Amino acid sequence: MAFVKAPCKRRAAILGATGLVGRTILALLEERGFPLDSLRLLASERLADRRLPFRGESLPVEPVSSHAFDGVEIALFATKNDISQKWAGAAREAGARVIDNSSAFRYQPDVPLVVPEINGATLDDLPWLVANPNCSTIAIVMALAPLQRAAGLERVAVATYQSVSGAGAQALEELERGVRLGLDGQPPARRDGGPPFAFNVVPHIDRFEDNGYTREEMKIVWETRKILGLPELPVTATAVRVPVRVGHAAAVNVRLSRGIGPEEARALWREFPGLEVVDDPAQARYPVPLAAAGRDPVLVGRARRDPSQENGLEFFVASDNLRKGAALNAIQIAEALSHAEAGAS
Amino acid sequence: MAFVKAPCKRRAAILGATGLVGRTILALLEERGFPLDSLRLLASERLADRRLPFRGESLPVEPVSSHAFDGVEIALFATKNDISQKWAGAAREAGARVIDNSSAFRYQPDVPLVVPEINGATLDDLPWLVANPNCSTIAIVMALAPLQRAAGLERVAVATYQSVSGAGAQALEELERGVRLGLDGQPPARRDGGPPFAFNVVPHIDRFEDNGYTREEMKIVWETRKILGLPELPVTATAVRVPVRVGHAAAVNVRLSRGIGPEEARALWREFPGLEVVDDPAQARYPVPLAAAGRDPVLVGRARRDPSQENGLEFFVASDNLRKGAALNAIQIAEALSHAEAGAS
Repeated sequence: MAFVKAPCKRRAAILGATGLVGRTILALLEERGFPLDSLRLLASERLADRRLPFRGESLPVEPVSSHAFDGVEIALFATKNDISQKWAGAAREAGARVIDNSSAFRYQPDVPLVVPEINGATLDDLPWLVANPNCSTIAIVMALAPLQRAAGLERVAVATYQSVSGAGAQALEELERGVRLGLDGQPPARRDGGPPFAFNVVPHIDRFEDNGYTREEMKIVWETRKILGLPELPVTATAVRVPVRVGHAAAVNVRLSRGIGPEEARALWREFPGLEVVDDPAQARYPVPLAAAGRDPVLVGRARRDPSQENGLEFFVASDNLRKGAALNAIQIAEALSHAEAGAS
Repeated sequence: MAFVKAPCKRRAAILGATGLVGRTILALLEERGFPLDSLRLLASERLADRRLPFRGESLPVEPVSSHAFDGVEIALFATKNDISQKWAGAAREAGARVIDNSSAFRYQPDVPLVVPEINGATLDDLPWLVANPNCSTIAIVMALAPLQRAAGLERVAVATYQSVSGAGAQALEELERGVRLGLDGQPPARRDGGPPFAFNVVPHIDRFEDNGYTREEMKIVWETRKILGLPELPVTATAVRVPVRVGHAAAVNVRLSRGIGPEEARALWREFPGLEVVDDPAQARYPVPLAAAGRDPVLVGRARRDPSQENGLEFFVASDNLRKGAALNAIQIAEALSHAEAGAS
């Protein structure tokens, strides 16, 4: 275990430390001055031969094992479903709280699915396992939550514009390779056989379900309902990959219980922590992924009344899918758990 | 006037021959063997110093003038609104029929707005001026028309993924430049001050209207209603530029009068000319812009019942915005007018 000079507080571990989300967690722990007593970087055997910089030191990446979580209080999992399922039990047995970025546990009724600004109160119960929501869903629900509180949601329909970093480091390499080769000809086919990311848009993220929706689209449906505490809310989505490196966007169309105009929507968003209103059509100001990348807030704008339905409202969101869409939200959960523990003790 | 060896039939002119749409018209006239007696290429004085290849010859680009349309029977306008407005009268006085790709005349009640597969019958009246619809709208209404006939449309909500070629040749150069510079750093700002096209998505096409929608979004609303002959149809749209060179896509969500499933939708689309169903989730087959580019059909797929509303259906379309979205549809109108004239004479 690598010991870090910091205000002695928590003993933490990152599982999947070498991935895009893992490295963003590492960067944000440093950026936010998260009080750490120790930090252990974990990855599969194959990746556990490198070191990663943290607070002026160089931390070794260790192979995950049944004893890797000994002494760990907070385990941040930035892994795929099967890895999260494999190691969550070991972390629990070691006494750690697990904040899991995969979708393995998100739909279990007893596992809280948390965006701290919205339903952070569920962390007061000090659950051992907290699920971190889907990257697109987080940005969407951040903008929906204040509308729901003020005017009631009746239906939500979404079309996403999701960056390639959401598919991981290897997909980002595919994009770069495709763009380089595609500049002077046709972008090459992807190594996994899918249509090129470069100079293309691909309405296929995660696997297809029997109902014709992709798993990614159903995540938006299920998780929006769960986070907002509206299990019957009608939600639908089309999830599309676009040739952007970092930054997910979404066009969101809602029907409310009470009609509100763009001014009122913007006022509600301005009061909501974690949102930044970027909405000035006269100055051509609106959210775009490039402006959201590398920053914490979810950008929201393009608010307008939708005259095609009663009490309709439309808007556009953009956020850094590695930060608020993943690493930042996970760390906010860790911070809230620490705060709740301090309050409980 | 350059004379072309071809089955002697029509004397045609292309105004804006050097632009992306003008050059695609030229390519398609050749590809389709459009029967021409003569073809005149017209452009502004500034651009009228070049020659363009056509059917093995090299045609001069001539400056547009008040006598440029003398003897012309069909004038294909591939120009911006102000240029179309300036020269439509001269073409009419010369006795030409004008097929205009700009939006200058689209919303005049006496000007037919035509997608031949849908409302081509309006051309039997042999109008002197026909408006060619918006590039995104054409692909969307192609997929909507058979649904409307079979099951009735109650509401249409669209989010587009529009390629940069829709903004013209200069914008395409901006994209290329942005991608090249953006590969090794941040994409540069656009010369017009807008956010980069490269590695970004931009929810801003054409100017903003007072209601918060862009003009591009309102085109989709107004033109869908006019082409389908449903002046009260509730329609809404979010129009977004994506870093794709050629090929517009759209996520389309509809509420129908009678619920239909994906199988029935696909059967309706298969019977409709100009559509190609690409919809096999098990094989990961669905429409993407790269597969639509350089081809005539509008690709439609990702059909699924939308459980968030009664009689809901969602799908995804992709088409070549320079072909069916512009040049091809204009030539189909010219072909239908020729056919109608032959029938009338």
